Amino acid sequence: MDLHEVIGLVAAVFTTTSFLPQVFKTYKTKDTSGLSLSMYIIFFIGVLLWLIYGVWINSLSIILANLITAILTLYLLVMKIKYK
Amino acid sequence: MDLHEVIGLVAAVFTTTSFLPQVFKTYKTKDTSGLSLSMYIIFFIGVLLWLIYGVWINSLSIILANLITAILTLYLLVMKIKYK
Repeated sequence: MDLHEVIGLVAAVFTTTSFLPQVFKTYKTKDTSGLSLSMYIIFFIGVLLWLIYGVWINSLSIILANLITAILTLYLLVMKIKYK
Repeated sequence: MDLHEVIGLVAAVFTTTSFLPQVFKTYKTKDTSGLSLSMYIIFFIGVLLWLIYGVWINSLSIILANLITAILTLYLLVMKIKYK
């Protein structure tokens, strides 16, 4: 694997990891009052577009990072709609 | 410009836009009690690595998105350290 792809994968781990505390907190408390539905919808669309971009330019890092983030964001969106 | 780069730039606008409310809120209230310092440090390192990755693979979308996000995250980090 090329060095730049290793950097990309480490970047993916870092930015995805920093997203996890929100997911764990929401999973544990079911409290979604602090989450903005409109902002998460915008973010989710952005992540899906990054996913398309990653597939298009054939970047494993971008595909993996945004696939995982899309799943986590979708979970938060479902929780927000369910417990609003 | 290629279509995939347009998709990437739209993705950049969406994911960066969703980050702005936090920045405006912190700018307005100076209240950083809800921000996790360790998580923002991890996120900031991840964004810097994405920036290196973007330069490496010569992706305008990734460079722009992560340059702006790095500046915004650095601002939040400085505010967190200043007003903790």
